[in-house]
Amino acid sequence: MKCRKCTRSAVINMRQHKLALCSEHYIEWFTFQTQRFIQEYQMFDLNNRLLVAVSGGKDSLALWDVLHHLGYQVDGLYINLGINHKTSYSLLSMQKAQTFAHAQNLDLSIVDVVKEEGAAIPEAANLTLRGRTKPCSICGITKRYFMNRIGLDHGYDVLLTGHNLDDEVAVLFGNTLNWQSGYLLRQSPVLEGSAEGFIRKVKPFFRFYERETAAYTFLRGIDYIQDECPHAIGAKTIYYKEVLNQLETKRPGLKLNFYLSFLKAKAEGLFSPEAHIKIGDLHPCENCGQPTTAPQFCTYCRMWEQVRSTKSSLV
Amino acid sequence: MKCRKCTRSAVINMRQHKLALCSEHYIEWFTFQTQRFIQEYQMFDLNNRLLVAVSGGKDSLALWDVLHHLGYQVDGLYINLGINHKTSYSLLSMQKAQTFAHAQNLDLSIVDVVKEEGAAIPEAANLTLRGRTKPCSICGITKRYFMNRIGLDHGYDVLLTGHNLDDEVAVLFGNTLNWQSGYLLRQSPVLEGSAEGFIRKVKPFFRFYERETAAYTFLRGIDYIQDECPHAIGAKTIYYKEVLNQLETKRPGLKLNFYLSFLKAKAEGLFSPEAHIKIGDLHPCENCGQPTTAPQFCTYCRMWEQVRSTKSSLV
Repeated sequence: MKCRKCTRSAVINMRQHKLALCSEHYIEWFTFQTQRFIQEYQMFDLNNRLLVAVSGGKDSLALWDVLHHLGYQVDGLYINLGINHKTSYSLLSMQKAQTFAHAQNLDLSIVDVVKEEGAAIPEAANLTLRGRTKPCSICGITKRYFMNRIGLDHGYDVLLTGHNLDDEVAVLFGNTLNWQSGYLLRQSPVLEGSAEGFIRKVKPFFRFYERETAAYTFLRGIDYIQDECPHAIGAKTIYYKEVLNQLETKRPGLKLNFYLSFLKAKAEGLFSPEAHIKIGDLHPCENCGQPTTAPQFCTYCRMWEQVRSTKSSLV
Repeated sequence: MKCRKCTRSAVINMRQHKLALCSEHYIEWFTFQTQRFIQEYQMFDLNNRLLVAVSGGKDSLALWDVLHHLGYQVDGLYINLGINHKTSYSLLSMQKAQTFAHAQNLDLSIVDVVKEEGAAIPEAANLTLRGRTKPCSICGITKRYFMNRIGLDHGYDVLLTGHNLDDEVAVLFGNTLNWQSGYLLRQSPVLEGSAEGFIRKVKPFFRFYERETAAYTFLRGIDYIQDECPHAIGAKTIYYKEVLNQLETKRPGLKLNFYLSFLKAKAEGLFSPEAHIKIGDLHPCENCGQPTTAPQFCTYCRMWEQVRSTKSSLV
């Protein structure tokens, strides 16, 4: 198959876009599309200071790479969660992020959860949940806490994550199977910041299929961690992705249409304004100062306080 | 496995309800549940005159059977669509409906589309659509037209259809994958009638899995047409049913939860009242007198007029 733009052989054929491209034109197309999404959804501009959360995986490194080449002021943030039992997952993924930053001469901040809170995520999960559930909940809360805090404390305008279409669609699918109103109303490629202390959050890759971000990373020769987080095995979203891939195979473009028609229906007023999440009275957490609706301390502080007290009672 | 209620062997195990029952107790349970749904969703009562649309398939015959045994005044309506090419689908399904009605001494009205409009559904579809699409659209419009007209003309209070949970969930799934606001807002086990000339429509079996209605029909020894409509082969809803069955196998109860959480979110005001379908100005069709928003003639009359004029131009 030939590239649509030149005479070379295509390296990728995107059935859903009816588009086949060679390496050079694919990178050009991918970069152009990213810029188009940023503008179409009014995510940020060249005057903004951007912070991209990098995991060392393909999506976040690709995002950092594209934005850097598009001329944006974008620094990276790596959160070391201490997931090193058996596999050296966190260590290896941090190295990938560091190598990339170094090669491109970009600034990478690193937060070490063990240093900050005295326990790695798997240990914290065991201490609070006694191994009953996966550590994904405590991990998510911790990542969101640091992304918001570092973003605001260091004066960034926008926090970016590398979520792709497959990620977003799997979450939307799960929220729809249970009709979780709150989550449905909040799901968006752009979450506005708030004066109470929430940074603006955007997902510039939300319209790219996973295969497309993977192809970009590969063609640009970016080295990234290929393993999934060991705790993600058996996660619902992974199963939903399989089901959605099946549907996509039968009808190319289904995933994109599912997400875009959701955003369209939302923009056209399908959902009731009264149903919008009542965030409740936000006030600063008495410990960390970040906004919370809880009486005294935010979820993050209460959770980690529980980890520390359980740990000390065991000593 | 033993029946939950007695010492006999169970004939059915419903994982999603964690319930296994013998034949006798299954029929009792199924009948009791039907009555419970009728009351819980305020569908109708013993004073109402009911008309059930019977296709000759398991669901509609089971529904007619249960309602008759529960003491409701319920007549049947069979619409002969003339789908007899190669298979004798319409003819055979009509015979099943007639045999059932006769054995139970129940009243069955029959509408013959060929007699009424001069062409069978497959022929009408070929004439209007030139074979480009399936005849399901013209078939659906025709069935809805006669169900409404016969229901109102003969003074029935409520029109009933045998749609089961699998049917409803497949439709909901399709409407959700495309976020079709109008269809999402209208999907309900109870559609109120209106003064403009729409009969009240209800689906008492919407909470039963397909397997449950099939088991009831089998255990009651009701003879029904087992084939799918030959035009349904390859239909999207059949594919959605397969996908949903896969999800259900992984998580028993998923289908029921998907549908009930949808109804709950809707009842709690997830959808905007302004988004509710503006039915527009309804007025009587100048030909048939049924309500329509179209300027002169309703969709049904325009469609069949097109069939007749195409047919006469070919003669």
